[in-house]
Amino acid sequence: MMKIGVVGLGLIGGSLAIDLRRQGHQLLGVSRRSETCERAIALNIVDQASSDLASLADAEVVFLCPPIGAIIPIATTLIPHLAPNAVLTDVGSVKQPIVEALAPLWPHFVGGHPMAGTAAQGIEAAQADLFAKQPYVLTPTDATSLHAMEVVSQLVRSLHATLYQCQPADHDRAVAWISHLPVMVSASLITACMNEPSDTVRQLAQDIASSGFRDTSRVGGGNPELGTMMAQHNRTALLAALTDFRDTLSHYIHHIEQEDWDTLALNLQQTQRDRPKFLA
Amino acid sequence: MMKIGVVGLGLIGGSLAIDLRRQGHQLLGVSRRSETCERAIALNIVDQASSDLASLADAEVVFLCPPIGAIIPIATTLIPHLAPNAVLTDVGSVKQPIVEALAPLWPHFVGGHPMAGTAAQGIEAAQADLFAKQPYVLTPTDATSLHAMEVVSQLVRSLHATLYQCQPADHDRAVAWISHLPVMVSASLITACMNEPSDTVRQLAQDIASSGFRDTSRVGGGNPELGTMMAQHNRTALLAALTDFRDTLSHYIHHIEQEDWDTLALNLQQTQRDRPKFLA
Repeated sequence: MMKIGVVGLGLIGGSLAIDLRRQGHQLLGVSRRSETCERAIALNIVDQASSDLASLADAEVVFLCPPIGAIIPIATTLIPHLAPNAVLTDVGSVKQPIVEALAPLWPHFVGGHPMAGTAAQGIEAAQADLFAKQPYVLTPTDATSLHAMEVVSQLVRSLHATLYQCQPADHDRAVAWISHLPVMVSASLITACMNEPSDTVRQLAQDIASSGFRDTSRVGGGNPELGTMMAQHNRTALLAALTDFRDTLSHYIHHIEQEDWDTLALNLQQTQRDRPKFLA
Repeated sequence: MMKIGVVGLGLIGGSLAIDLRRQGHQLLGVSRRSETCERAIALNIVDQASSDLASLADAEVVFLCPPIGAIIPIATTLIPHLAPNAVLTDVGSVKQPIVEALAPLWPHFVGGHPMAGTAAQGIEAAQADLFAKQPYVLTPTDATSLHAMEVVSQLVRSLHATLYQCQPADHDRAVAWISHLPVMVSASLITACMNEPSDTVRQLAQDIASSGFRDTSRVGGGNPELGTMMAQHNRTALLAALTDFRDTLSHYIHHIEQEDWDTLALNLQQTQRDRPKFLA
């Protein structure tokens, strides 16, 4: 059993703490806000909680779970307090900038991204088994210590998550395709529908929209701060995916303009065959 | 109680017959295939079934429920057999071309579109109450008889559907926005993801895709024949929606290229506010 620090006691940090503490580890929580520390103790999520990163001086592993923009500054402040063999990992949804910044600072750092979440946020939303059967990606580099990779891998497996391992840049391109691009496409759908100039048609569209529109627009109507942060932190990979998507859409438009129904049908047959590959 | 004909005994025609027959109407089914006629009788969906449109000579109302491309030819063949006051309506998902073709041929014709369906097709999928609480759009013109409008409106209400009434062209623009555009956008998303040149990244994207990708890609991975037919029959309105969508997407791309995070956030705040208008 280990002393495990969790910095940032929101949905992800809180849920990690719940699962790890149930396994018998000693959980040391850190939150900027003292109210969150008190709630984490009251909810029995951590053994101790503090607003001081120095409280993690004897932690054997630390999970960094603040909002993505705070990961690098917090890690930079935390590292001088860490014990020499302490393992450091984060849960940020974009990996290359974080790994590039932190790998040179700490040999026992390994980037991570648990692909889990709910619409709810904050410590009150923390729950057991949030990561079970969900993908959890680790992005070690040539400089990552074997020790860090072994410790984090074993903890990830103990959450019953499905472990994947890849280059940070490959992770960021993959999440651009399946997570960040869908948000922008889905948001553009809502914006475009609201651009309809006729009040009558726009109102009718709203009245008769059903499950097809509901599903396609869901992620575009989600948390705006999260969507903006994704774009900020994964800008290059997202722009590449958006540009490719726009070209692809232009091909669909071209087939319809040309009344090339055979090619359109072939494309739609292909998407029908390809979609299940993403939902195995 | 009336004699009601249903031409095309698939999901929609069969489900209409089930509900109307339960109300006590006499249901006369017509299907091209004699096996379907036999199944409709065996399943107790209709009182009589025939492959001959002349069997509807004394029907008071006829619902045309074949695949959309067959509506105009079937109506043209059927009309000479109809009793003088017989009311004719269809269930096609695009209205302007059908109304333009049939309104001049029959004063008691009114275009209709029940916004209901399931992933399943065919008479075996027919079910009671398929239309309850779903939108059902009627598209009368100045030439439509009051008689036709009254009879069809009353039958639609008896299905517990929510009745909307509009111009055929307005209907087609509204369904382009909320039904046909989402299919092409969603299909383009799948095609674009499969364009990823790196096998490693494409495989990782497939492995880690979760509910966001699943929902955004759902209608793009659906029935290819249906998607192609939508585009063929609603080509003009769909192209207008696709072009506006592509322009909107280009604005999103521009904000991200320019790192104009304030404008991106404002857009995403607006889509978060607007989406519920479509899901009332």
